[in-house]
This record gives sequence, C-alpha cells and structure tokens, in this order.
Amino acid sequence: MKKLKFALAGLGRIGKIHLDNLLQMNNVRVVAAMDPFEESQVYAKDKGVANVTSTFEDMLASTDIDVVVICSPTDTHADYVEIAAKKGKHVFCEKPLDLSLERVVEVLDLVEDTGIKLMIGFNRRFDKEFKKVKALVSQGAIGEHHLVKITSRDPGAPPVSYIEKSGGLFLDMTIHDFDIARFIVDKEVEEVYAKGAVLVDSVIGDVGDIDTAVITLTYTDGTMAIIDNSREAAYGYDQRVEVFGSKGMVKAENNLHDSHQLFTSQGSQRSLPLYFFLERYAEAYKTEMSDYIQSLENGTPVPANGNDGLQSLKIGLASIMSLQENRPVKLEEINQFQSIKMLK
Amino acid sequence: MKKLKFALAGLGRIGKIHLDNLLQMNNVRVVAAMDPFEESQVYAKDKGVANVTSTFEDMLASTDIDVVVICSPTDTHADYVEIAAKKGKHVFCEKPLDLSLERVVEVLDLVEDTGIKLMIGFNRRFDKEFKKVKALVSQGAIGEHHLVKITSRDPGAPPVSYIEKSGGLFLDMTIHDFDIARFIVDKEVEEVYAKGAVLVDSVIGDVGDIDTAVITLTYTDGTMAIIDNSREAAYGYDQRVEVFGSKGMVKAENNLHDSHQLFTSQGSQRSLPLYFFLERYAEAYKTEMSDYIQSLENGTPVPANGNDGLQSLKIGLASIMSLQENRPVKLEEINQFQSIKMLK
Amino acid sequence: MKKLKFALAGLGRIGKIHLDNLLQMNNVRVVAAMDPFEESQVYAKDKGVANVTSTFEDMLASTDIDVVVICSPTDTHADYVEIAAKKGKHVFCEKPLDLSLERVVEVLDLVEDTGIKLMIGFNRRFDKEFKKVKALVSQGAIGEHHLVKITSRDPGAPPVSYIEKSGGLFLDMTIHDFDIARFIVDKEVEEVYAKGAVLVDSVIGDVGDIDTAVITLTYTDGTMAIIDNSREAAYGYDQRVEVFGSKGMVKAENNLHDSHQLFTSQGSQRSLPLYFFLERYAEAYKTEMSDYIQSLENGTPVPANGNDGLQSLKIGLASIMSLQENRPVKLEEINQFQSIKMLK
Amino acid sequence: MKKLKFALAGLGRIGKIHLDNLLQMNNVRVVAAMDPFEESQVYAKDKGVANVTSTFEDMLASTDIDVVVICSPTDTHADYVEIAAKKGKHVFCEKPLDLSLERVVEVLDLVEDTGIKLMIGFNRRFDKEFKKVKALVSQGAIGEHHLVKITSRDPGAPPVSYIEKSGGLFLDMTIHDFDIARFIVDKEVEEVYAKGAVLVDSVIGDVGDIDTAVITLTYTDGTMAIIDNSREAAYGYDQRVEVFGSKGMVKAENNLHDSHQLFTSQGSQRSLPLYFFLERYAEAYKTEMSDYIQSLENGTPVPANGNDGLQSLKIGLASIMSLQENRPVKLEEINQFQSIKMLK
Repeated sequence: MKKLKFALAGLGRIGKIHLDNLLQMNNVRVVAAMDPFEESQVYAKDKGVANVTSTFEDMLASTDIDVVVICSPTDTHADYVEIAAKKGKHVFCEKPLDLSLERVVEVLDLVEDTGIKLMIGFNRRFDKEFKKVKALVSQGAIGEHHLVKITSRDPGAPPVSYIEKSGGLFLDMTIHDFDIARFIVDKEVEEVYAKGAVLVDSVIGDVGDIDTAVITLTYTDGTMAIIDNSREAAYGYDQRVEVFGSKGMVKAENNLHDSHQLFTSQGSQRSLPLYFFLERYAEAYKTEMSDYIQSLENGTPVPANGNDGLQSLKIGLASIMSLQENRPVKLEEINQFQSIKMLK
Repeated sequence: MKKLKFALAGLGRIGKIHLDNLLQMNNVRVVAAMDPFEESQVYAKDKGVANVTSTFEDMLASTDIDVVVICSPTDTHADYVEIAAKKGKHVFCEKPLDLSLERVVEVLDLVEDTGIKLMIGFNRRFDKEFKKVKALVSQGAIGEHHLVKITSRDPGAPPVSYIEKSGGLFLDMTIHDFDIARFIVDKEVEEVYAKGAVLVDSVIGDVGDIDTAVITLTYTDGTMAIIDNSREAAYGYDQRVEVFGSKGMVKAENNLHDSHQLFTSQGSQRSLPLYFFLERYAEAYKTEMSDYIQSLENGTPVPANGNDGLQSLKIGLASIMSLQENRPVKLEEINQFQSIKMLK
Repeated sequence: MKKLKFALAGLGRIGKIHLDNLLQMNNVRVVAAMDPFEESQVYAKDKGVANVTSTFEDMLASTDIDVVVICSPTDTHADYVEIAAKKGKHVFCEKPLDLSLERVVEVLDLVEDTGIKLMIGFNRRFDKEFKKVKALVSQGAIGEHHLVKITSRDPGAPPVSYIEKSGGLFLDMTIHDFDIARFIVDKEVEEVYAKGAVLVDSVIGDVGDIDTAVITLTYTDGTMAIIDNSREAAYGYDQRVEVFGSKGMVKAENNLHDSHQLFTSQGSQRSLPLYFFLERYAEAYKTEMSDYIQSLENGTPVPANGNDGLQSLKIGLASIMSLQENRPVKLEEINQFQSIKMLK
Repeated sequence: MKKLKFALAGLGRIGKIHLDNLLQMNNVRVVAAMDPFEESQVYAKDKGVANVTSTFEDMLASTDIDVVVICSPTDTHADYVEIAAKKGKHVFCEKPLDLSLERVVEVLDLVEDTGIKLMIGFNRRFDKEFKKVKALVSQGAIGEHHLVKITSRDPGAPPVSYIEKSGGLFLDMTIHDFDIARFIVDKEVEEVYAKGAVLVDSVIGDVGDIDTAVITLTYTDGTMAIIDNSREAAYGYDQRVEVFGSKGMVKAENNLHDSHQLFTSQGSQRSLPLYFFLERYAEAYKTEMSDYIQSLENGTPVPANGNDGLQSLKIGLASIMSLQENRPVKLEEINQFQSIKMLK
C-alpha cells in the first residue's frame, strides 16, 4: 500500500508528540515540517524529516504532501486549514479552529466544498477510559441515559498571557468537556447554564476570566450533563466521567502513577493521578492519529470532524453568555451572537 | 444520673427504629408512646413501654415526660411541636417541620420563646462518612473550599400518593442534600439554580413533580455546590459526597454490602451499595439520638436545630421556583414567596 | 413460642458481648450468669439478669436453664462443658475446648452420648465477608478450588502471660485461620508445613513461641492453602481471604473505618482497617449467637460443632510439630502425639 | 556521544519487542540481527537493519558491534554468551542462561574473565509497580521487612512441548518470582519448601511437571517469602506483590485494562487484568533496555547481572528437589546437586 505523506505545521509540545507518533507508524511517511523556531527545525531534521521550512507556504511547496497536521498557534489554524484545503490536502487540526463562530463556519464551508477530510484534535475521545464508558453506554449497559457528570480539573493554571489569547476557561479548557458531553452519549446540547468564580488566582479575574466553574447542559431530549472545572487541582490532573441511566451507572476513574497501597499506623496511602494531559493522554494521542489515518485509508468518516469543533465552540460561547448574564442560554441564541471573546 | 424520660409519637418505620435504639441506651427510659394503629401500639407494649396511647394529648398526659420524639406524618409535626413546647418538653422532630415557610417560622418562634431544645432529624449528619469528610474539611485538609458535589439517588420512587403530600422531590428528598451542602462546609446558600426532568416514571410528572434533577447552589462567598438526584438508581442507594478545595479533594464513597471481589473470565465483580436509608444510615440513627441526648444532658447546642430545618426548606422552595421559571433564584426572594407546594 | 433460657459463665470482654447481644434478641431470656469477679456480677445484675453467682455449679443450680454459654478461661472449658452436658444443657463454648487432644476427644465423646448441642465459638464463620466468599465458592463461581490464601495479622501482641497459657500463636491465633481454611472450601486438611520466626518481640521467643508465621496446608485432595500471621500489624487488624480456582478467584478485603479518600499534593489517603476483632467481628458475634439459637429451635445442625474444634486443634498441634522439626507433618501423626503444649 | 551499535540474535516475540524498542532510542543504532527464519529476517530488514544473517557467527562477523542482545532459544544462550564474550561484546541475555548449574557457573566465570557487561532479562524488576514497592521498602516506609507475598499466575499454560524443554514451572515461570523475592527486599534465600499439584491439566503431569504451586522461601536472616503460582488464571495475568514489615505493609495490584466501574441491578463490574506479560510488561521491556544502555554508557553496574540469574536458578533447583522429596531444602545443598531437569 502506498504510504500517506504527512507534513507538520508547528513543532511545539503537541507538534513534537504528533511527529514522534507518526514516525513510529509503518503506513505513513513524514515528508515535511515547518516551524519558525530553529530549535524545532533541528528537532525535525534530527528525526529524519527531509523538508523543514519556516513558513507554512514553503512547507506546502517543498514536496508532495497528502496530509497536513496543524499544531501551530490557534490564531493561524483557520488560515492554514484554508490554504491546505484549497490545495486538496487532508487536514488534522488541533482545536479550536478559531474563536470566532463566523470564521469557523466560513472555514467549514470551504472544507466541505473541497471534499478534503478535516479532523479536529479532540484527543480525549481516544482515551481508553472515555472510549470504554461510551462503548458501554451505547451497548445499552445502563439503559436510557439520564445524567452525565464530567469532572475536569487541571493541575495548575496556564500563564495569564495564554488565557488572554485562548478565549478563557470555557474555550480553552471546558471545550474538551463539552465535546465529551456530546460524544459520550451521542446527543446534542440545547441549553447551557454556567456558574463560575475566581478562587484560584485573582490575576485570572483581572483579565476577565474565571478559574472555577460549574456548567449544567441540557440535551435536546431534556436529559442533563454537569461539568465541574478548576484550573488548579493540588493532587494532579483530575479527569473523570460518569453516566447514569435507567438501568445503572458507569464511571471511569483517574489514571494513577501506579497501583501501590501503603498501610502504616499513619494511614493508607496510594498514588496520585498522572500529572497532566501529556501523561494521561499519551496513548490517546497515538490512537487519535492512527484512527485518523485509518479513516483516510478506508474512506470512512473521521472520528472528530469540523462540526464537532463547531458545536463545542457554540456551547463555549453560550457558557460565556450564561455566566455574564446569570441565566440559562439556548444554543440557538448563539447564532446571532457575534463578538464574545472573554468574560469582561 | 437521673435518666431522661422519653415519649414517642408515631411508630411507623422510623418511629420503631428510634424506639429500638432508645431501648438499648442505658441513660434514658422510654415511658410513653402513641400511635393511632393497634399494631404499633402492640409493638410498643411488647417492648415494655408502660403508657401507650392513641392520641398525642393522651400520651403527654399519661405520665411524666422530659423529651418527645415526633415521627408521625409530616402534617402533624408543627402542631405536635407546639403542643409539646408549650408544656416545656424537649422535642426531637423528624424533618420537615412543615412545608409552609410561614408555619415553620411561627413554630420556631414559639420554640425560642419556650427555651426547649428542638432537634431536627437530619440523620445524614451523623453518618460516619459525611462526618469524616466534614472533619477533614474543617481541619483544613483540603485548604479553602471551592466546590461541593453531592450525589443522592434513591433505589426506587415512592408511591405517587406520598409524593403528592411530601412537597415533591426537592422537599422530601433533596432537602437532605441541601442540609448536607450547608453542613459539610459550614456555609450558607445564597442562590439556587435547579434543572429537572421526568425520566423515571411519567406518573410522577402527572402529579406535577420531577424525578431527576441537577441543582447548582452558590454559597454567600461565591463558592458552589452541585447536587444530582434520581428517584431510581437500579444499583441501589447512591449516597456520595466530594469536596474540592485549594489544597486537595476529599470524597466519601457508597457503603457496599461487603468487600468481596470476584474475578472470572467474564470480568471482575463487586457488591452493590446497601439498599436504602434504613441499611445505609442504621448507625447514623443511633448516633443522632445519642448525640441529641448528650446535648440535653450537657446543655450544649443540638447538632441540627430549627434553623437548619428552616434553611433547607428555603433552599427547597427556591429550587421549586427556579425550576418553574428556569432561572437562578436568590434565597432572599423566598421570604416573600407564599404558596409553593409543588411544581405545577 | 417458648423462649430459650440462657445462662452465661464468664463475663469478661467476650462474655459481656454475648450477654448484650442475647439481651437484644426477642426469642431468648438470660436467666443466670456467673463470674468470680464482683464487677462482672454487678454488670449482669444491672442488665437485669435475675440469678448471678460466683461459681458454675451455683449458676446451674440457681434456676431452670436450657443453654449455657461458656466464656470463662480456657482451662475451665472442658470441665464446664462436661458438667453442663451431664445435666442436659446445650452448650455454646468459646474456642478452644482444651489444649490437650486427649481431653477434647473425651469431652466430645461425652457430648455425643448426652445428645446435647455443642457449638464452638468460631466467630469468623459468621462474618459477612467470609460468608460471602464461601457462598460464591460453593455456588461454583470460581469452579474447582485450587488455592486458599488467608492473611491474618493482629494489631498487637498479647501479654506474654497470656501466650504462656494459650498454647502459643498456632493455638490461640492461627486456630481461627485453620478453621476458616476448612470452612471456606469445605475440605479436610491432610498435611501441614509451618515456618515461623520471632520478629516482633524477642520476649515472645523467650517463652518458646513465635510471632510471625507462614503455614502451608495440603487438603486431602491435594489442593493447598497458605496462611500468613503476624502478632503485630502497625496498620491494624488484617483479615483477608482469597480463594483461587479453575474458573476464577474471589477475595474479601479488610473492613475500613470509613470509605473516605483524601487527595492532596502529598498523595492519596484512605482509612485503615478496623482496629481489632471486637470492631471487625461485632456483627459476626450477633449472627453467631442467633444462628446457634436458630439451630436449637429448628433442630438443625449447629454451624460450628465439636469436630470443627477438634480438627483445628489437630492442625495447630501438627503446625507446632512441623515448626519444631522443620518438616511437613501429616495430621494422622497427631493421633499418637501426646504432649505438645508450646514450641520449646 | 558515540552511539552504541547493537545486534540482536533471535527475532521471536521477545526479540521483536527489543528490536522495536531499540529503534525508538536516540542513543543507539541497531546494526545487525540474526534469525534462522526468513519471516524474522524480513521483519528486521523492513525495519532498516543493515546486516541480517541466519547464524550467530555470521552476524558477529558482519559488522562492527558493541552489544549483543540474545533472545534465541534457551539451549543456545550459554554458547552465544560465550562466543560474544570472547569477542569482547557486551551481552543482554534473556533468562535463563542455562538449566544446568554447572554450565551457568562456567559461563559466568568466562564473563568475569572477559570483563564484558552481562545483563539478564529479568524484566519485572523494571515494572513501575515492583519498582515502587521496592523503593518504599528500601526507604524504610514499612520498617524492618518480615514477609514477602508474591502472587504470580499465568492466563494459560504453554504447550507441553515447551514445558518439556523449559525445565518446568519452577524454572520457566517461578524463576521470575524467585528473582523478585530477592530483588524486592534485597536479601538472599537460604531455604526453600515447595508444594505443588497438577490441577489445571493432567497432560502437564504426564511430562513430569506441576501446574499449581506454593513455595515458602526463608531468607538468610530468618524472614520469609511466600509465592503462589498457577499456569491458568481464568481472569488473566495475575501479578501482585506485598511486603509486610514492622511499621506497615505495601502492596501492588494488577494493572487493569481500564478503570471503568459499571453498576447495575446485577452487581458492580470492573475490568480484568491486562492479559499477559506482553501487555503488562510492555513498558518494563523498554525501561529494562534503556537502563542497561545507561549502565553501559556510565560504567555503572547492570541492574540484573549473572549472579542474579545464578541465584534464581539455584532456588528453582532447590524447589524441584523440595517438591520431589517433600522436605525443606537448603540452597547450599544445591551445589552438589547435579542432574535435576524436571520433576520426574
């Protein structure tokens, strides 16, 4: 079988992970990479990538390419996807496509016109824990679904400079949970009520964001989901999900460093959760990419498409509006909603 | 030491539990009991209770009494507490005092005037799991508190005839969770947002109630609590709590029938949670009563007083209003709120 | 139904537990008790026992008695059982009947002649954990049984004065595990290999005993059991069992104080096991007695009879011989074995 | 830094794992490989190995080599190690070096003379669970060590043809547990008592082996270890360890497929252990090799040397003798013991 030729745009932390994972796969070749920084260019060259450039356009021009993986800063995503799509390249793009709903719709329209396969990097969908829960739910193990509960807490807040660009908690962090809320029970969200506070660090409040949140989602069939978030869990990355239904309940727990149990006169001690997403989702990043490749090879739908990105963005924007106005917000209100960027 | 003389009004399921527990305590005597039904009267006589009557007034007149335990139907609570308080008897009353806020305030005013010690039967406060979590939280084990999560699901819905009188899910079931939300972090609630649905049994909807709910509480300091309820958890009584804070998280799990773990080629199996409140809170009922007795003997405050009942009722009424109007409701709005009884 | 009339000989720690449990049962009456110490006599009188004496003979003569519960020191057991049996009283006797195999056989012969119902107080058989494991094993949940693993560690060593009289670790502590090894898979032991050491306290070695042991039992069908013991587990009473078979494995874990889980940057903490047998087996003591009463009322076999005591004693004696001679010992060798008392 | 040049002898299941792991390491190059089978040769060529041969001698002659990894059949190990050592190559050899004690001593003498670094593939030493337990034990977390408990059960028996060559259960399977028993508490074994049976498959008994075993090890300081083995655990690969000491106990549990918990009216279900060593020890194989490479680069001792192989073999031979003669066997008896190969 002909090997798919991959190019990577952006070799930051996530870009390097995708590069390393792609290099271990037998059915693809990484033929090009781009990054403005020399350190990243050297990294790619050392790994044997033949064409390494400092601009996206140069990379596309450097050799024959089938698929582009976009891991560059968020504000380049939409442009890069457009350029690649117009040249007929398939695109794997880290989330989000863009923080502006209008721009996202524009890009998705173009993607549809070109017929390329766009995959959005919702890595948690490929985590064995979430997959197992979804599998049990869809097999009917818990009957009809009534409630989803998602706990998602980071081990520490990002720098404020990041938050100012990211769109804030709902758009850079909760957006993953919004996606899982849709994914895990295969339902669409109709209404959002978000409540939040600045409890971790007042600097986060100063830039108009919150660091602690509770969000109630109502699906179109009237069932509900609850998400709780914190930017700082002292004990590590807390990623749990629970689905309750008419015939039972299924949940997935955190992945711990190891299974040891120590018992002394002082108490019984176990390990903490894996520190952050790089550790917790290391395998998920591999599966995500190999599942995407499989969908390219087999002509089957990608496991996380542009609409998935769009819906999560809408829920995020509705959450921002809900928090600002302290009222439940319908997703349909978001269509006319233009300029939400942050909370203030 | 002089033994306190107890009388019990109402010998249904809970009344019998209190009677049996009191009979095992060395520092009290059960001197009287009342119940309109002969079966219950026989039960008390067989246990050696000397004065057994069919009316509350007859019971109070039958002998010298220090303390009255009220386990009769809800609509008698307020009247019985008043009668007993006027005669200077201390009162242990099962929750709720009444479904009408106005009536509760009236009774509590009288209680205050008489100086008797009124205890409300919030049994969960005495469960070893909730007590342990509260103790760790108050010792600062998790630092400043940010989030409370309470899961409270019954194994099966009560008959609709009960629901019609009870005030509905928020007032007969969630009211315990409202109390735990206040108790576990020692904070007052300021605002409520409730979302609910009829997912278990449409008959419950027909009488104007819901059977599944998600409630977001905001405390006066801006921190939050989430409660999720269902009238029917197929796997038994689900009673969990989690408190998240600046330095960590503490949670308490369900109590299982036993600790066995069975591993076969089919999977790994464990026991389910204890079936319902009689099993789960058997020890809590004992501790509740002995703690009350201790507060009577030592002249210390009762561990769950009239105001605790009042606050939980207010949160319940605010939840009803929130659900009806689909908006967050401040507790202060409830003061002028007159006639909420059910959802329709 | 006529209520069975009970008398208790010996009101030490265990005797008081049995007395309190009997007093809570509706179908029996405690009519007499004996103990040489005044404190214990007062305890019984305070609980309403009508006839309280200081000798066994006086107690038997004091009133009409159906059943005698023997909780006096071990060296009185055999004599008291004989006296009671000769008078036709049923007997519940704490283990062991005696440390001398000859004497035990003598007493059991008499018991058989008189036709009374003798129950030996192997309380662990009535623990919900061990019962659940046995039930699953006997239902075939793990197929044919291959291996039993018993962990049994006390939180602290008894005084040396106790050890000198008790017969040592194998006869006062492991004897419970020998019984569980027979009970849990319903098989007889054929051979024993015991290995031990003095690791906790050298004083225990000075009186000829060990404090740490590993015992391999071989059942008559060639399958095996392993027991490990320590006199001192820093983290509390460690009582676990595991049965492995052709179709799977089942195990029971320790009972913890509560189910809390605390997560901080320092690690994840849980509660320790319940401290010792009084806490862990509180419910088992009740079930043990009510099951015995039920067998008396229904004329069914007692759930732990004289032969159960005899077999465990034999395994204990074989363990002593095995340890002394550092070789596996067949149980049949024990028939000719006369005078083992301790290890030196 | 100069990259170490590796050659692999034997590209069966384990050989391929080592090859793939080496190819992902930046500080080594795989320059040669050998295997008599064409499929394996093609595998190596496809992975970019330049020199692929069908004999060990040809491989050594094909290019410049620093380190040889031996994964060929057991009966070639000793010869290959000798050839490689004489040529000054470092050697990583899968266990065991040989089933004959005499031959092992011979090879180790040669290794010592040549000064090459021989590492034995005791992969479990590199498992995060066992490492964590060892780390806690060596830090004194449980005080003085009293007891080690190792549970080691395979998901299914190997073909009888394998067993006939492998030396049987004690030499092909328990040998890993013997190594862990030494490793985890850093102590030497003095005496062995082994008990076994044929309970899984009578065919195993026909070739003179057992499939179920219980082994008691006594360390030179009088403390003890217990190992239990089965060739067939219906629920998967069961690999647990527990160490008990004067100040506490530490244990490591099985690694499960995922952390899901499903609760229905039928019970509560979790995932089973990872199926077998390839899954459970996938990470350990990587760490094992990178730790070996580190010791080569830094000139530090290898983490599992020839003596570790020798000691485990001795314990295995003592176990065979113990089982045959049904008595405890001292390790010092094994020096004169010549011809044990299997149990019959």
